[in-house]
Amino acid sequence: MTYCVGMLLDEGLVFLSDSRTNAGVDNISTFRKTTVFESKGDRVLVLLTAGNLAVTQSVVSLLKERLATPEAGLTLHAAPNMFEAARCVGDAIRRIHERDAAALREQGIEFASSFILGGQIGGEPPRLFQLYAAGNFIEATRETPYFQIGESKYGKPIIDRIVRPETSLRDGAKCALISMDSTIRSNLSVGAPLDLTIYRRDALHAQQRLNVTADDDYFRIVRSSWSEALRQAFRALPDPPWG
Amino acid sequence: MTYCVGMLLDEGLVFLSDSRTNAGVDNISTFRKTTVFESKGDRVLVLLTAGNLAVTQSVVSLLKERLATPEAGLTLHAAPNMFEAARCVGDAIRRIHERDAAALREQGIEFASSFILGGQIGGEPPRLFQLYAAGNFIEATRETPYFQIGESKYGKPIIDRIVRPETSLRDGAKCALISMDSTIRSNLSVGAPLDLTIYRRDALHAQQRLNVTADDDYFRIVRSSWSEALRQAFRALPDPPWG
Repeated sequence: MTYCVGMLLDEGLVFLSDSRTNAGVDNISTFRKTTVFESKGDRVLVLLTAGNLAVTQSVVSLLKERLATPEAGLTLHAAPNMFEAARCVGDAIRRIHERDAAALREQGIEFASSFILGGQIGGEPPRLFQLYAAGNFIEATRETPYFQIGESKYGKPIIDRIVRPETSLRDGAKCALISMDSTIRSNLSVGAPLDLTIYRRDALHAQQRLNVTADDDYFRIVRSSWSEALRQAFRALPDPPWG
Repeated sequence: MTYCVGMLLDEGLVFLSDSRTNAGVDNISTFRKTTVFESKGDRVLVLLTAGNLAVTQSVVSLLKERLATPEAGLTLHAAPNMFEAARCVGDAIRRIHERDAAALREQGIEFASSFILGGQIGGEPPRLFQLYAAGNFIEATRETPYFQIGESKYGKPIIDRIVRPETSLRDGAKCALISMDSTIRSNLSVGAPLDLTIYRRDALHAQQRLNVTADDDYFRIVRSSWSEALRQAFRALPDPPWG
């Protein structure tokens, strides 16, 4: 399993992914799920992946291969805007589907994959998309300024309560880490190291790309302080009138 | 969908269930998912149900029918201890499976059901079980003093952080309501009114059976105060060193 979250904030974009993959509980490995496509001063695109690793790695490889052979069609470096960039990723998913889905089906394996794509191209404001295995996609709005893929439920309540478009990049990153901590505590198949990518609007390069290990000082503070803060908040809540 | 939680605490047992059922988002109804079997001074058994409503209602009906015809086999009122009571429920699940599973399979419908059974019989300490669709079951321990069925993920992190065997009944009920609130916010198919049942050890009757509606005063306080408390806890957490 996997947990990834992307947020579209007024100040920019925040992306967080874990790095655990598993084929059964006895076959656990570490694979990064964040890929950054950057052309400094022109564009930054961040792609997070969840699902069948062979599928998602193939999609990323195909996108990279195309950068080297732009004559083959639209590439992430040539897309005129984020909508076209999302179509470009959707197209790569469909190519991999054409190649692999039937063989997977033969083995009873689903063509399972989902993606978060966010970034900024030139003067267009930053945009954030979630893509499905069919290559179709939806875009984040002010009402729903974030997307999650993979094991999303444990970490959703805190994001729903905190994240608004006005949330700062700093608070967005803090909230993403808390959301990840709640997920890691409850689901063995999600684990550190984490990839945290912070993009400040109009910078046109990815300012912060952090590799957060399980013993990272700040992540350890988040883990212990948040548990304690929750317990305090719990104690501060009025007692039920009955019982 | 459904969300139910049962907790085994040193002071006794706490049970909370929602009441929403749905066959698609355009067919939503209210059905209670808590059934109390009580024989004052001798035993209290509380059964929570999740899954296919036709299956779970049939199981409860069969258990009640058997109370009227004890010669047909072990009943919940005659079971000598909670382990035998859990077997009695498991047996009812298997009888309904024999009758309905093949017909459901014909229609492509899964025989989906899960149950939480808790209570106390005579001088035995209170015990808590989770039963599966196959009629088998597991029992709560001091390390894992609670069970959830239905849409369990949204409401799990807060329980993991708060509930220990030493937790009071009052705090257990408060935590169950917070956990339910997190679930209701994130999943349309879980909804009030709620059934809250609190059983104090050795009472041998269910002290508190509360029908908590969406506009119940205390539940409204929990909903608004908890959101605010979380936001405060979030602000109190140290900022990341980067960003």
